Amino acid sequence: MNNNLARVDGTRVLADLHALRAIGPYKTGVHKPTFSEPHLRSLQWLVQRLPEAGLAGEIDGIGNIVGTSTKPGPKLLAGSHLESQNHAGWLDGPLGVVYALEAARVINPDPNTSGAVEVASWCDEEGHFGHFLGSRSYVGGVTEADIDAARDRNNDRSMRDALRDAGLAGRARARYERGRHIGYLEAHIEQGETLESSDLKIGIVTSIVGIWQYRITFTGEQNHAGTTRMAVRRDAGLALARFCVDIDARFPAVCGPRTVWTTGRITLDPGAPSIIPGAAEMLFQIRDDDPGVIARLEDLLRSMAAEVDKQGTVVVERIRTGAPALMDVSFQQAIEQAGAACAGGRSLRMPSGAGHDAQILATVMPAGMLFVPSIGGISHHWTENTADADIITGAVVFVEACRTILTQRDSA
Amino acid sequence: MNNNLARVDGTRVLADLHALRAIGPYKTGVHKPTFSEPHLRSLQWLVQRLPEAGLAGEIDGIGNIVGTSTKPGPKLLAGSHLESQNHAGWLDGPLGVVYALEAARVINPDPNTSGAVEVASWCDEEGHFGHFLGSRSYVGGVTEADIDAARDRNNDRSMRDALRDAGLAGRARARYERGRHIGYLEAHIEQGETLESSDLKIGIVTSIVGIWQYRITFTGEQNHAGTTRMAVRRDAGLALARFCVDIDARFPAVCGPRTVWTTGRITLDPGAPSIIPGAAEMLFQIRDDDPGVIARLEDLLRSMAAEVDKQGTVVVERIRTGAPALMDVSFQQAIEQAGAACAGGRSLRMPSGAGHDAQILATVMPAGMLFVPSIGGISHHWTENTADADIITGAVVFVEACRTILTQRDSA
Repeated sequence: MNNNLARVDGTRVLADLHALRAIGPYKTGVHKPTFSEPHLRSLQWLVQRLPEAGLAGEIDGIGNIVGTSTKPGPKLLAGSHLESQNHAGWLDGPLGVVYALEAARVINPDPNTSGAVEVASWCDEEGHFGHFLGSRSYVGGVTEADIDAARDRNNDRSMRDALRDAGLAGRARARYERGRHIGYLEAHIEQGETLESSDLKIGIVTSIVGIWQYRITFTGEQNHAGTTRMAVRRDAGLALARFCVDIDARFPAVCGPRTVWTTGRITLDPGAPSIIPGAAEMLFQIRDDDPGVIARLEDLLRSMAAEVDKQGTVVVERIRTGAPALMDVSFQQAIEQAGAACAGGRSLRMPSGAGHDAQILATVMPAGMLFVPSIGGISHHWTENTADADIITGAVVFVEACRTILTQRDSA
Repeated sequence: MNNNLARVDGTRVLADLHALRAIGPYKTGVHKPTFSEPHLRSLQWLVQRLPEAGLAGEIDGIGNIVGTSTKPGPKLLAGSHLESQNHAGWLDGPLGVVYALEAARVINPDPNTSGAVEVASWCDEEGHFGHFLGSRSYVGGVTEADIDAARDRNNDRSMRDALRDAGLAGRARARYERGRHIGYLEAHIEQGETLESSDLKIGIVTSIVGIWQYRITFTGEQNHAGTTRMAVRRDAGLALARFCVDIDARFPAVCGPRTVWTTGRITLDPGAPSIIPGAAEMLFQIRDDDPGVIARLEDLLRSMAAEVDKQGTVVVERIRTGAPALMDVSFQQAIEQAGAACAGGRSLRMPSGAGHDAQILATVMPAGMLFVPSIGGISHHWTENTADADIITGAVVFVEACRTILTQRDSA
């Protein structure tokens, strides 16, 4: 095994990550919204790297890249994404793509390991246009009508226009072939502080939590901010603020140990300083890996809405339902073994609070995920980072886990 | 006196208001942002009406119209504005312009009344580009640099571009001539429910409240909404919601009897459903006609900010300071007399909670304001309305008050 480990080139892994960081830099992070120029350049960068790993691939009709191998034996699919949130970190996405590329570069030319790692970059994991459009397209979950309807939430550009501008209109979309892959493995930064605070190096993902999202709208009475006495106001914005504070007071008694909830966006209508808001809207999200917990919280949310209905009309509308995805047990074992051999056993089984393409791939094949520590637990911000040593340790464990999975399958 | 009253043509007043309503209609209201096509068309409509009242005037270099008379004797300036808030009511502004026009049509040709009413339409009272830019320009409070800097808050178009597109670039701006006018009178809908709820027909404005405006910013820690445990979050949006609720709980003990406060806009940064807001901002406004009350409330606001500073940084920044404006006592008496003669004495002295151009004119000449009832107290909304009979009563009282003011001055 030590012989194999020597073949992971940590310097090459870091160099690749820095090459991607240099495309669309923003402070110490990057700004690469889906189909932006730096995102497209990052995709071209990956296409040019594929031959180094004995792979062939192009950008497909939805911005995915799936590099395929002609090597005989089992195929393991591995990857992540190359676009970023706005003004966000350099590792969220690229880390998993570069690990996959490194695994392919190490394993595919190795005659002693049967089979190959195939490398994927899924488009729009960050949801500029929708939810996991790239990976969902690959598993057959995106229709042409879905693409017609998708628009960039940053600037309202249609996905069709973005694909046309990128020269991708009319290209075929890569599709999942039943039986081709023995599974999917993805690496990612943890995006939390569990590993760092326990001085651990590898997270073995047991499940990816589901995301339930709600649009909660408050209707009051729009009026003049100078002439309407306080006593007769029906201020939709104030009703919304009360609701946020009330959620924070009442959810803890009902939630599970790992439940999280977030109000990420608030809009007052019309949003002018001299007008009492007649309407207000909040985007509210709950995450858990237990649908039973979500059901209890949603009941609470709806009963809270009914309680405050005397102040104005409150409507709770569920706009996204996320089923939790379980990670394959044998993949978890392979990562744990690799962590024992290459990271001094400093690994931990944990759920993923964030959504990842692995949850989409898990609907059609066994899937697993590996986490590396995030400094300060920070992510979705340009200060996101991971220590170089941890990046290299993660790469070594990832490549070893790929080899273990391929070898077990070949001998099974 | 009855002889005079007969000369107000209620049908003509209503027809004029409906003509303006038909320019840029939105549901039962209008949508005429400053320098929009329907706003400009409304200004041209007024220019074409001026000769009916023996007045001459053009749109000036900032979008004001001041129609002047060559009739000997005292001159009373009267008017309001013709642009609207977005998707707002049909009377907010046009009522005061049409009353002024009607007063000029009745009084100016009348050889028995010395002097004339001159009609003004002030640009941008609604503040699409700034605060009272039109009336402030007239009294000498707007520099060329102020115009250079002004931008449309709806679409960020510069005022220079708007003036150029309207064909007004390079035109001179009408300026206040010291001694020309004996004062300024403006009519407006009440924008509250005080008159309606007491079955009164005329509001005699005693003062226009000052507006103090604050930008309150909260800094937390931007992080991933799925991976950051509730216990370690520093959610700037939640801190803002708590602050809003806290204001509502604590202001009533410190405010005056007519103080009003409003959070009209809330922005979470970055405003994405899967990101814990790292920053949040609210635009907060307080109105009162007593600067002492405002000082107490501002102290409370700052001490509240200091208290919650442990959750994150809170900055309270005053971005607008409004001095209350007192209305001229003899103008109040003239309106009261006219109300006694023509509205059965169903009038009430009251402060204006809303800002009006009269507060700007009051800095250079005696000023007065008359209110008519608002149905349901609604304003700044397309459902804003006033009963036809109340519109006509208001016009009769307004014209009579103009005549009284001119007559008193002429005989003084």
